[in-house]
Amino acid sequence: MSGTVRLYVDHPLGQGQTIPLERPQAHYLFGVMRLEAGAELLLFNGRDGEWRCEVAQAGKRGGLLVCQEQSKPQAAPPDLWLVFAPVKKARTDFIVEKAVEMGVRRLVPVQSDFTNSERIRADKQRAHAIEAAEQCGATFVPEVAEIQKLSRLLDHWPAERHLLFCDEAQAGGSSALAGLLALQEAGRGPWAILIGPEGGFSEAERARLHGFDFTHPVALGPRILRAETAAVAALTLWQAVLGDWQ
Amino acid sequence: MSGTVRLYVDHPLGQGQTIPLERPQAHYLFGVMRLEAGAELLLFNGRDGEWRCEVAQAGKRGGLLVCQEQSKPQAAPPDLWLVFAPVKKARTDFIVEKAVEMGVRRLVPVQSDFTNSERIRADKQRAHAIEAAEQCGATFVPEVAEIQKLSRLLDHWPAERHLLFCDEAQAGGSSALAGLLALQEAGRGPWAILIGPEGGFSEAERARLHGFDFTHPVALGPRILRAETAAVAALTLWQAVLGDWQ
Repeated sequence: MSGTVRLYVDHPLGQGQTIPLERPQAHYLFGVMRLEAGAELLLFNGRDGEWRCEVAQAGKRGGLLVCQEQSKPQAAPPDLWLVFAPVKKARTDFIVEKAVEMGVRRLVPVQSDFTNSERIRADKQRAHAIEAAEQCGATFVPEVAEIQKLSRLLDHWPAERHLLFCDEAQAGGSSALAGLLALQEAGRGPWAILIGPEGGFSEAERARLHGFDFTHPVALGPRILRAETAAVAALTLWQAVLGDWQ
Repeated sequence: MSGTVRLYVDHPLGQGQTIPLERPQAHYLFGVMRLEAGAELLLFNGRDGEWRCEVAQAGKRGGLLVCQEQSKPQAAPPDLWLVFAPVKKARTDFIVEKAVEMGVRRLVPVQSDFTNSERIRADKQRAHAIEAAEQCGATFVPEVAEIQKLSRLLDHWPAERHLLFCDEAQAGGSSALAGLLALQEAGRGPWAILIGPEGGFSEAERARLHGFDFTHPVALGPRILRAETAAVAALTLWQAVLGDWQ
């Protein structure tokens, strides 16, 4: 990682564009990071790619940045959602961070029958996704949906979106890789990956998930994986077989 | 995860075997977890599988457990090492935890040219690996080697052990999955995965790594992954193609 400051802003970016700073951003850039007028930094807004910018004015309560040139084109990840049951806070944060690094379009927290931690603040997780994007060099920040019941999400599931679900009880089933490779042709189009809670899915959920045309159960090896590990593993296999790692 | 206590002990386990407890273990089981005589728990020692045991005596300073029956056979992961450059503490802990869940035989911390955090206590990381194994239901605990220089490790590398290294600069190279699938036949035998530090490998290291017969460079997608994410992703692909997820 380079030492150049990389910041998300909710402002249009383009050749010669000026970006006025509000107090918290000015405090961060000039107070914490000690940038001065003339300093360079990288900005992205999730839509216009990444831009090399210069500090035009630096003040305690505000400032002005000017876009110099685009340093990275806008790059959206494949149309993939990560649907997950929140776990303990540090591990939920981790799932969000890893989803940004691995490349997903949308994060969908769900309450399932065995979800322990039912509270998740979408605004906090959006901020966490932005921070992860700042860190990992991504130009895209996934949307974080409000938490909803898994049953309700499935009631309204868009039938054309494939859903890969990681099923610990899938012992003896096809391996995740074999399952995905078999879908390389049939599996074009939008996808989602569903990671269950620490306690797994309930029998009722499992039966329902197996009953849809759009679902694809996979097993992730012989060991029990924590939710955040299963998320990274499933995202890896999906990206490698169907996504932009090909 | 069930509520049954699962504990690693450094003691032989077998039918009718008694296990005397030392003070810290007794404190944990009877003080913290509040187990009483007659309570059931699961023990493993990394060699004899997992055993269902009963508390025979519970005291403040010690106690006695008795093995009832084997609940899981001993299962070692494939002969895979994870070689990694330590990063910040929480993320290094995470790499160790994930390596246990994903299944590796040996953890080998290395100092590379760009390694920031050079200190790692193998004893602490061994304890961390044991804790991860207790949590994830594994019967095997990987060895954690003392930290060593990457250059020295490569000087003495066993030529028959394949080494997969994750190279950010491998843009345009073959994808990790294609690379591994191509090795499914030729790649039998022992393996290691090398994850570089946050700053990547130095040019000298990269040139050296590319020069060996036993090395296989792979690229992990178009985004920059943190070290712990790269570790889980590389372990996933390896396990799916060459390991015990097949």
